[in-house]
Formats: sequence, C-alpha cells, structure tokens
Amino acid sequence: MRAVTLDGQLRVDHHAAMPQVTGDQALIKIRRAGICNTDLELVAGYMNYSGILGHEFVGEVVDGRGVDDLIGRRVVGEINVADGTCDLCARGIPSQCRNRSTVGLDRHPGAFADYLALTRQNLHVVPDQISDDQAVFVEPLAAALQIFEAIHVSPRDRVVLIGAGKLGMLVAQVMRLIGCDLSVVVRREQQARLLNHWGIDAVDRVPPQQAQVVIDCTGTAAGFSSALDMVEPRGTVVLKSTYTALPQADLTRVAVNEVRVIGSRCGPFPAALRLLSLGLVDVDSLIEQRYTLDEALEAFSAAAQPGKLKVLLDF
Amino acid sequence: MRAVTLDGQLRVDHHAAMPQVTGDQALIKIRRAGICNTDLELVAGYMNYSGILGHEFVGEVVDGRGVDDLIGRRVVGEINVADGTCDLCARGIPSQCRNRSTVGLDRHPGAFADYLALTRQNLHVVPDQISDDQAVFVEPLAAALQIFEAIHVSPRDRVVLIGAGKLGMLVAQVMRLIGCDLSVVVRREQQARLLNHWGIDAVDRVPPQQAQVVIDCTGTAAGFSSALDMVEPRGTVVLKSTYTALPQADLTRVAVNEVRVIGSRCGPFPAALRLLSLGLVDVDSLIEQRYTLDEALEAFSAAAQPGKLKVLLDF
Repeated sequence: MRAVTLDGQLRVDHHAAMPQVTGDQALIKIRRAGICNTDLELVAGYMNYSGILGHEFVGEVVDGRGVDDLIGRRVVGEINVADGTCDLCARGIPSQCRNRSTVGLDRHPGAFADYLALTRQNLHVVPDQISDDQAVFVEPLAAALQIFEAIHVSPRDRVVLIGAGKLGMLVAQVMRLIGCDLSVVVRREQQARLLNHWGIDAVDRVPPQQAQVVIDCTGTAAGFSSALDMVEPRGTVVLKSTYTALPQADLTRVAVNEVRVIGSRCGPFPAALRLLSLGLVDVDSLIEQRYTLDEALEAFSAAAQPGKLKVLLDF
Repeated sequence: MRAVTLDGQLRVDHHAAMPQVTGDQALIKIRRAGICNTDLELVAGYMNYSGILGHEFVGEVVDGRGVDDLIGRRVVGEINVADGTCDLCARGIPSQCRNRSTVGLDRHPGAFADYLALTRQNLHVVPDQISDDQAVFVEPLAAALQIFEAIHVSPRDRVVLIGAGKLGMLVAQVMRLIGCDLSVVVRREQQARLLNHWGIDAVDRVPPQQAQVVIDCTGTAAGFSSALDMVEPRGTVVLKSTYTALPQADLTRVAVNEVRVIGSRCGPFPAALRLLSLGLVDVDSLIEQRYTLDEALEAFSAAAQPGKLKVLLDF
C-alpha cells in the first residue's frame, strides 16, 4: 500500500506493508486526512518519531474480527491507544494512559496511508450529514473542546485567543458558542476576514491584564509571554500547543499574579461530532488546499507556509 | 528612628525619618521581624526596590486617627495595600489590587524599622497565646495556606513538596494537617530531622509522575523541571516562590500531560492566626538565629546561607 513515512526524512512509500490486524483492531481504508502542525513538528524532529505519519483522518472500516457492525461505515479515530489497565485508564482518562501509544505520533502507525489498523474502542461512526472533509476536523475540534473539560469558562468572561492558526481557528469558533466576550489577536488579513465572517472580533492587540482567560495556540515563548501580559491576576492561561525547544517562561509572574496555567490536549470526539452534525462550527472555510496522497511532499511544503490553514490529503 | 534601607546597597540608617501617619493608618512600633527569601532577592535587585525593607513583623499600635481600639495591642499586618476601588478589590481580591503598594516590596516602607505606618484595614490583632516569635510567621504561614485557596487538595492525594526552606517548611506543615500522603524532597539533614519530628516523610526522591500535587518552593528552573517530572498527568504544580531570572520551562510537557500550573501568593491572615492559636503549626523550631536591628547586615548575611531557616530581628 501507499504510506507517507518519516525516517529522518519524509517520503511517499508505494510499497509499504499492509497493517496486520490484531486483537480488537479494525482495518480502516483511509478516505481523507489532514495535516496538523504536530505533523510538521514531527518532520522537524519532535519526539524522534519514525514510521507512518498522520492522525487526522476519516476512513471506512473494511475488515477486522468482531467489527461486523462497523464494516462499510465511515469512522474517525481517537489517537491515544490506551492499555485499559493503568491507574489513569481506571480513572477514566485513557487519553493520558501511562502506557499509551499514539496514532502517527508515538509507536503507532499513522493514517497517511491507504490502510490503518486501529483498536475499535477508539473509533466513532461518522453520521451521514458530516462530509469527509468535515470529518477530518473531528480530531482537532475535539482538542479545541477539551478546553471546556480542562477549565470552566463563563459566558461573562473576557477571553483572548492568540495564535489563529489551524487549531486556533477551531478554538475561536468553540469559544464563540458560549457567548463569552471573545477577541482573537491576528496578524493576517485572511484570518481576520474569516473571524469577522463568524462574528468574532479580530484585533491587533488587547489591553494588558484584562482577560479572565487567554488561550495560547502559538506554541512559542513569545506567545506565552504575551498571554501573561494579557491575563488578569487570578486569570487562566490555557496552553493548547506544543512549544518548540524549551521556552523561557516568566514563572515569577505566574506566582505573583496567581495565574493558572492549564495544559490541554486531546478531547471528546462525541462532542465534536455533535457540533459538526449541528452545523455549529464552520470547518469547510478552513480548507485551503488539497493534494493526493502521492503528492504528500508538496502537501507538507504547502502546509508549512506561515499562516496556512488546513491542507487535506485525498486518497 | 532606625531603619534597614536598601538603595543599591543595604544599610542600617540610625536617622531615618519617622513615618507620617495619614488617613486611616495606624502607627506601629515594631517588636520583632523576620527575614524572608524575598528580602534577600530584593537586595539582589529584584523589583528594583529602594526604601525600608521588611514585611514579616509583629508590632504594637501606638498612634493613629480612629484606631483607639487598637492602641497598645499587638498586631500583624497584611502586606498588600489596596486602593479599595479597582475591579479586583470589588471582587474581594484586594491582595491583587491593580493599584496596590506592598509593604517593604513595592512603593511602601517596610517593617525593618522602629516604626511603620500601615492602613488599619491590613491589621490583625494577635491573640495573647501567640508569642512575638510566632506572630512573625503569620505572613508566611498565610502564604502557605493560600494553596488551599488556590486549589483543592484532597486527603487522598499524593502531595510532594520540593524546596524545604523557610516557606517550604511551613507549607509542609500545612499540608500535613489535611492527612494527605505527603513527601518532602530534602537535601539537608536538619530539614529531614525536623520533618520527621513532625511525622512527615523526608525523602531523597520520589517516583516519576505519581503525585497529584507538587508544590514548588524552590524558585529555580531546576525545581520547576523536577516538579514536572514528579506530577502525574492532569496533576497540579503549585508555584509558591518567585524565580530568579527567566527560567526555561517545558511548556510542551505542561500541554501534553495536561498539567495545571497554579501560581499562589499572599494568603489569609485569620486562618494563620487560628492555626498558631491552636498550636497546630510549629514555627518555633524554624527559628535559627536572632539579631538586633542594629546587626541587620550580619542578619542578612546569616539568612543568605544555603539551607538557613528563619532569622529574626529583635527591636
């Protein structure tokens, strides 16, 4: 089969081995996939990953033991493959399983391939009213929704989002849904236009220390520093991205201003599917370019351009 | 009057001007004071403070308009002088007042002087059963108690404290009171003996990612890094200290492990006074040395020695 593999360098392998379906895995024929910033970071060396990339996808179940009810259905898949036995699994937090592998990120083949074998407990059937394009966004939309799992955001809150990229534009839309006083700091006209189209304030800057919640989707030390400028004392900064290298961070300011810095990662797929079914989040406008799987290298180059929104891979 | 002043360098001024009592201030004759790590950092240049140092004290009210009920009484004083009118004051958080000055730290004379003028709303009468020595610890003990204001700690939690210094030894004792599974990472025999005397586990190291709560009283980048090693996914790291310079911090790990990093600063004086009245916290054992105000320079040198616990100034 075809697969986009990373082993020091990125390439499209036309003779990759078909996945061996084991245990409770379903074999999924991938229909469409999306390139995430994390994929770009993996190519740049993050986590020393080698193997098949890709963790945002929609596909069709074609094989597997005990998955008869799923055969022929479109599915999306959670990326954390949990052992189901550790203390964090027992507490209902399989996404933080101590022995997890992660699809396309950590000791588990990814979805930029014709086929993916994935445990059925990670799969969610995609309702008919959600298109393949839209289904690719379930994973990052769930990650955006995870903010509501991690912290309480009140409709009275002033919320500022920085880093209006692929993920940030989803986070902005999710925040918009609760009626809070939302501002998104943007540098690009395209993002500003889209945000305004959704009725969200796109601004150059915000007054210092006035926001109850600042969501940092920048993944940069400068972004975190800005977040600390913007958040009010006792306010909350949500970290929604991984950071390049080891950023310098003004922890003194965190202590003195009694700021809460909350990390947030993968989120609830069912909620993301509901929002897409209800048409409450516009993901179609986030699609900038499409490539075939065979053109994956060009797709990665395009996705790496500053300010680029979603690049899809068609199969 | 005498005063320990900082103006680039530290000195004991024998001819400092008496404070002018204005508005609702009480004039307090200082009886005893304590040297805090923050005082040492101010001397090293933190906040560019110049003026009279000192914010841990007990004294006697000797003058002031409308303070007749307080004359002759022993008092301790909260260090944040709030304007009472900003939005944070209106929300009941005067310690984070946007226009506050801070006793001995920021645009307000400190307590290492024969007299201090301080707004009466910051004063708390010290019950007779609390000695002068003990009363000096009300301010840092309140700061330790602020952890319970900032986060919920369960008696079921594994709690690890790192940085068993002046403040850390108070934090350890406060955590001990709720019956949680507490370990304190220590490097010094003296601290280990004291902790064991209180029935608290003093350890060299703890297993990685097992603690629900890690309290970082180190104020160092290495300490914060250790805290991230120790805290479990979805766990909480409490920052209890200011940090020298701008530490490098693994924000990626905060995001990926969904850690909560919570800053915590000044705390509730009434609760600290209750604990001291009840004899539930041993502060006497934390007193290592005493100097007179005239010997303040020697006292600062002593306080700066690594591992040194509380150094008091007698008046």
